[in-house]
Amino acid sequence: METLNVELGDRRYPIHIGPGEAAHPERLAPELSGRRVAVVTNRTVAPLHGEALRASLAGAGIRGEPLWIELPDGESHKTLATVEQILTRLLEARLDRGSRIVALGGGVVGDIAGFAAAIYQRGIDFVQVPTTLLAQVDSSVGGKTGVNHPLGKNMIGAFHQPRAVVIDTNSLNTLPTRELRAGLAEVIKYGLMKDAEFFAWLEENIDRLLALEPEALIHAIRRSCACKAEVVAADERESGRRALLNLGHTFGHAIETGMGYGAWLHGEAVGTGMAMAARMSARMGWLAPADAERAEALIRRAGLETRAPAELDAARFRELMGIDKKVSDGRLRLVLLRGLGNAELTADFDDDALQHTLDETARAA
Amino acid sequence: METLNVELGDRRYPIHIGPGEAAHPERLAPELSGRRVAVVTNRTVAPLHGEALRASLAGAGIRGEPLWIELPDGESHKTLATVEQILTRLLEARLDRGSRIVALGGGVVGDIAGFAAAIYQRGIDFVQVPTTLLAQVDSSVGGKTGVNHPLGKNMIGAFHQPRAVVIDTNSLNTLPTRELRAGLAEVIKYGLMKDAEFFAWLEENIDRLLALEPEALIHAIRRSCACKAEVVAADERESGRRALLNLGHTFGHAIETGMGYGAWLHGEAVGTGMAMAARMSARMGWLAPADAERAEALIRRAGLETRAPAELDAARFRELMGIDKKVSDGRLRLVLLRGLGNAELTADFDDDALQHTLDETARAA
Repeated sequence: METLNVELGDRRYPIHIGPGEAAHPERLAPELSGRRVAVVTNRTVAPLHGEALRASLAGAGIRGEPLWIELPDGESHKTLATVEQILTRLLEARLDRGSRIVALGGGVVGDIAGFAAAIYQRGIDFVQVPTTLLAQVDSSVGGKTGVNHPLGKNMIGAFHQPRAVVIDTNSLNTLPTRELRAGLAEVIKYGLMKDAEFFAWLEENIDRLLALEPEALIHAIRRSCACKAEVVAADERESGRRALLNLGHTFGHAIETGMGYGAWLHGEAVGTGMAMAARMSARMGWLAPADAERAEALIRRAGLETRAPAELDAARFRELMGIDKKVSDGRLRLVLLRGLGNAELTADFDDDALQHTLDETARAA
Repeated sequence: METLNVELGDRRYPIHIGPGEAAHPERLAPELSGRRVAVVTNRTVAPLHGEALRASLAGAGIRGEPLWIELPDGESHKTLATVEQILTRLLEARLDRGSRIVALGGGVVGDIAGFAAAIYQRGIDFVQVPTTLLAQVDSSVGGKTGVNHPLGKNMIGAFHQPRAVVIDTNSLNTLPTRELRAGLAEVIKYGLMKDAEFFAWLEENIDRLLALEPEALIHAIRRSCACKAEVVAADERESGRRALLNLGHTFGHAIETGMGYGAWLHGEAVGTGMAMAARMSARMGWLAPADAERAEALIRRAGLETRAPAELDAARFRELMGIDKKVSDGRLRLVLLRGLGNAELTADFDDDALQHTLDETARAA
């Protein structure tokens, strides 16, 4: 087991990482002992990991039975309506400001549950138990919570830091391979954006990660969370450096929205988006072509697409990028690569390079 | 004109107070110049103060026309559904993270608009132009935003500080007398809870305030905001001292909920709640009977009721108090008075004194 502390001033919190972590009541007791607890999870995760968490909560000495809230699975339920249903359940059960929410599930559950915690009685504390690799390396750090709006992903939300994060690497044993691969996209992202050494480690160890070797997983998750924590601690609100975490995301969000929420997994879209950013960077002369190829190769070895879907032509893709949150004062900004491990946010990019990258779709490749 | 600075670390912001303030573009320019702006107001306030604000925004050099969002008037519209409609308008107009919201109206408009700002794209900045006395002395400081839920007032919300507050005392000239009186309840609250000298000043000057004398208004608003700012700066989240601001509110919320939202104005209910707290404190021997009478007399001179409505019997009243946010771990806490200017939060109160106070309704008086 390893513990990483995320330093955010008076809001320091621990991330515990290891096999069987969620089954250890001593991880939860410091945060939940003597308190009323609502567990927010979904119908896919609950049968797999619900009983272990229930036992762990009982062992941690929470007050009474946990209020158990099971959402339907899927990004399509990541809406304000779902959050309102959760708030109603919390109020019906008379949970007060000292009560806590535990989010058991992937990124969608974490985003919804965290946002419900952020706005219930103007904010109560919550603990994350992320069960997908994507959620473990992405949602664990940064405090982003929120839901989608028909006009855009994550357009409604709040920054709300968890009290603690408990990452049980055993939960990845039941994760569909497709979701594991999507999670690896975000892991690769940290290497690409700021840690060339980690990128090289991933080139060596990607097959161990795909085989779910615990030691490799702990290393990759810890390093990913540490990378993100460094960026977030320096820039808690998304303004400067934090925007670098969006490497691949402007392209990725466009793909997710354009293909319909849920058709592509978030990580799949980010993987493709990063490959697009790498190629575009190479076209602009920012990145050596050989390094762009290394980036693409690693993304491909993780089992991810590297070209935009043929269904989205360049005009539609541009339109989809227009409403992205990273548009500042109406001007599009992109995260591109100056080198492996060296991402940069810029509004000063070559539009031809963008156009070529958008034209180069999966079918045309 | 007077300016009071609310000190909240890196989130210091000014409150400008004076006649005609909202008509001065130079108050708004520092916050809004060059930015896109959405104005959230309601159908009652817009015809009275909308044109002056529009001119002021144009003079302040905002980017393009303001997006104008007029809500129906009234607490019944303070819902998550209304917030969602605002968010949709903001997204349709493609307002980005650098855009700002201006809240023009009373407390309901400020709470809704502030909450929309808090959760739009995980938080954008906003400026308050409160047009009621209650909003000027209450919502201007503290960063509380949010909406109601059928199971309780203000149960959904966030802490979100404004960039600036512009208080135009001229806006009180068009305020219905009933609302002026409701606002005076909160002004009296600051005297009762922590400022005996201000309480004595109010005894001397209550008639000047009811006559809308500008100098008296500026003094009362400034002192009220300063009182609240002191408490909030020491305790930004509601945990310890900040709970004292809820003097009269536990009783008041029960009245508001029990009588149906909107039947009693918030300030009216708080006025009555404070009188109840004063009498209960006297019954417990905390407050001299003569001081309880001074408190009641000032509340009465402000034109407010001092007894609970006869429609709510004690059992119903207790039930209504049970779901209040100030219930910590299921135990009711009340703000009572140890003296004029000396409020105290306690769970250790005399239940008989509570029962007597609840039994002593307006009709029985």
